[in-house]
Amino acid sequence: MGAPPYSERDDQLTRRFLSEQHEAALETLSLWMREAGMAVRVDDAANLIGRYEGEAAGAPALMIGSHIDTVRNAGRYDGALGVMLGVDCVEALAASGRRLPFALEVIAFGDEEGSRFPAAMNCSRAVAGIADPAALRLSDSEGVSLADALADFVRARADVRPAARAPGDVIAFLEAHIEQGPVLEAEGLPLGVVTAIAAQKRLMVRLVGRAGHAGTTPMHLRRDPGPAAAEAILAVERICGGREGLVGTVGRITAFPGGFNVIPGAVEFSLDVRAPCSAMRDAALARITAELAAISDRRGLTLEVELLQDLAESPCDPGLIGRLETALERIGVAPRRLPSGAAHDAMIMTALCPSAMLFIRCKGGISHNPAEAVDPADAAVAARATLAFIDLLAQAHVPAVEVGA
Amino acid sequence: MGAPPYSERDDQLTRRFLSEQHEAALETLSLWMREAGMAVRVDDAANLIGRYEGEAAGAPALMIGSHIDTVRNAGRYDGALGVMLGVDCVEALAASGRRLPFALEVIAFGDEEGSRFPAAMNCSRAVAGIADPAALRLSDSEGVSLADALADFVRARADVRPAARAPGDVIAFLEAHIEQGPVLEAEGLPLGVVTAIAAQKRLMVRLVGRAGHAGTTPMHLRRDPGPAAAEAILAVERICGGREGLVGTVGRITAFPGGFNVIPGAVEFSLDVRAPCSAMRDAALARITAELAAISDRRGLTLEVELLQDLAESPCDPGLIGRLETALERIGVAPRRLPSGAAHDAMIMTALCPSAMLFIRCKGGISHNPAEAVDPADAAVAARATLAFIDLLAQAHVPAVEVGA
Repeated sequence: MGAPPYSERDDQLTRRFLSEQHEAALETLSLWMREAGMAVRVDDAANLIGRYEGEAAGAPALMIGSHIDTVRNAGRYDGALGVMLGVDCVEALAASGRRLPFALEVIAFGDEEGSRFPAAMNCSRAVAGIADPAALRLSDSEGVSLADALADFVRARADVRPAARAPGDVIAFLEAHIEQGPVLEAEGLPLGVVTAIAAQKRLMVRLVGRAGHAGTTPMHLRRDPGPAAAEAILAVERICGGREGLVGTVGRITAFPGGFNVIPGAVEFSLDVRAPCSAMRDAALARITAELAAISDRRGLTLEVELLQDLAESPCDPGLIGRLETALERIGVAPRRLPSGAAHDAMIMTALCPSAMLFIRCKGGISHNPAEAVDPADAAVAARATLAFIDLLAQAHVPAVEVGA
Repeated sequence: MGAPPYSERDDQLTRRFLSEQHEAALETLSLWMREAGMAVRVDDAANLIGRYEGEAAGAPALMIGSHIDTVRNAGRYDGALGVMLGVDCVEALAASGRRLPFALEVIAFGDEEGSRFPAAMNCSRAVAGIADPAALRLSDSEGVSLADALADFVRARADVRPAARAPGDVIAFLEAHIEQGPVLEAEGLPLGVVTAIAAQKRLMVRLVGRAGHAGTTPMHLRRDPGPAAAEAILAVERICGGREGLVGTVGRITAFPGGFNVIPGAVEFSLDVRAPCSAMRDAALARITAELAAISDRRGLTLEVELLQDLAESPCDPGLIGRLETALERIGVAPRRLPSGAAHDAMIMTALCPSAMLFIRCKGGISHNPAEAVDPADAAVAARATLAFIDLLAQAHVPAVEVGA
């Protein structure tokens, strides 16, 4: 027996959007969905959707899911766990013959990671009705366009617009996902309730001084941007430390020209700042840039700051957050609120309907890595929490459009 | 008329060892040496030597000179100025018909910069009798061996050993060279007396933490080696600051993996520390490595320090230093002692005879760059200082071997 057909490589898990392995995964997942009691279809954006009808056929749906694609050399839980939790919940409901005042749909989005085409989350954008038509012209590394790959996969014309759902058709979206961070593990909690997907700014900072000979230029006559960058990096750590959800990262740093025996003439570093809201993020960035200017002035350097990316926060629905917290309390789990520093399909789905996210503890905060790990007991707790959440929604359900209000 | 034939390129000065341009420069220099009153020869290591006999023919010689090769895209003074000063001094002596109790030799070393073969100062090593025979097997970027290039250039068998001078044959060596640093300019002095060529250690420092997602890992749960490296860089600046001649430089820094949205798992940086003596250098390095260990411990990181180069200091001869200072005083220049942070042929020549160096102020400390500049008035002061130094040696000269004792 070889490796299962769900990865592009035998020695690692890589399942990119619209690959044969994506198709194989959907075939098996379809089988499981049918066994759980769902009717299954693939939409025009290559999302697999299993539907468990409510008390009345054709009712608006609570949608539960996550993504089925992976990064290269991925872990086993990122995305897939959230899809499987949805299947599990439907299986439990169907086993007891229970129907809800709304339909339940489990969705496996095709492209959250963007590991094949240079864009991500096109599949949830299609469902939310905010697909960018230009994305269809993007090509993968082998020159295959997204339009062609999609047409081949769904055996239809390449137009993702029919995948869009009418607003009243989906009452809410819930995504369960591994935390990809170490907070829950550090606090000994299996689950967390996401408040918002973080606001993010990405910048490139350049400090320019004067290059010189490392041997012949005394310390007091240098204009070395290296120690200035060092002060700036420590300022980022200090300013972003101690505030829940605020993070600042210098992931790349380069000294120019980079010779062992040359005092750098310039140093460049990246700066990524995220916070639960733009106001907190921008207040931190204002303090950081003020410190940068002061450091640069004091050391006689030139400062250049370039803004590369600016994403506003994407808050989860307050009503759904409250119900998730109640659901956690009902199953005996302390409801820990936390922001998501990473992007997820749920942030796209807010354009269609109230959305919420449940985070599941993972080992060491590790993800995008074969060492990614989740305790099966935590996954079971997540399933119980989701069922409790569904119960609360069902109890509160009068007309679908008021859920989450 | 095109550019003069002394550079490999029309638009910049590049004159590498054993190039046609090196040969052209030696031809013109030979002419000038002969016009100044010298007998001229090229030794087996491609050094050009002009000799002005003393009162008695065949007397031991005071040797004055520097190198005639350049780096790529060089300045006009690095090396060449020290050779031309020697020619000027002989010209002045010959013009007045004066002979000294010793011969005067002006030498243009062929290879100080190492910009053609991956080794430097082979020519002064040959004169000092410490040539490394293995160096002859080194090849340039086009696959030409040093042995073949040398044989072609000096039209002889490739053996630099005959270039070695007998110890009693050379009473002292004086090299005048641009400072390549900003100290003399900052203090308003045209000249400086070099005390020693600095002791140097070159290290690579690696701090290893834990990579993580820039969005999902809170600040207090990070083990980011970036801020640790920042503290280390500031410690280098602080520890090396304020002590004459002690310098510490971080010229290269890299964060791994280097993604904008990834907390670095490791940071590597180079560290170059130089001081007038090994003891001062090593005391500074001991403080730096102690701080590194403390930073690394406090932040839960792993520290690796690799020593890449260890060069002891090369002190100039105390007797010659004293005479150079007296010479400067005689021409009305305050005798500023300073170490040389850069390597020079003079440090090789200490293996053969007492050696000294005179530094000449240059603009902004800039060298290895077309912007390198020396005020012609400073070069004239250097020539007067050299003549005064020669006078002092001549007055003190009883038997050659005692000079510099």
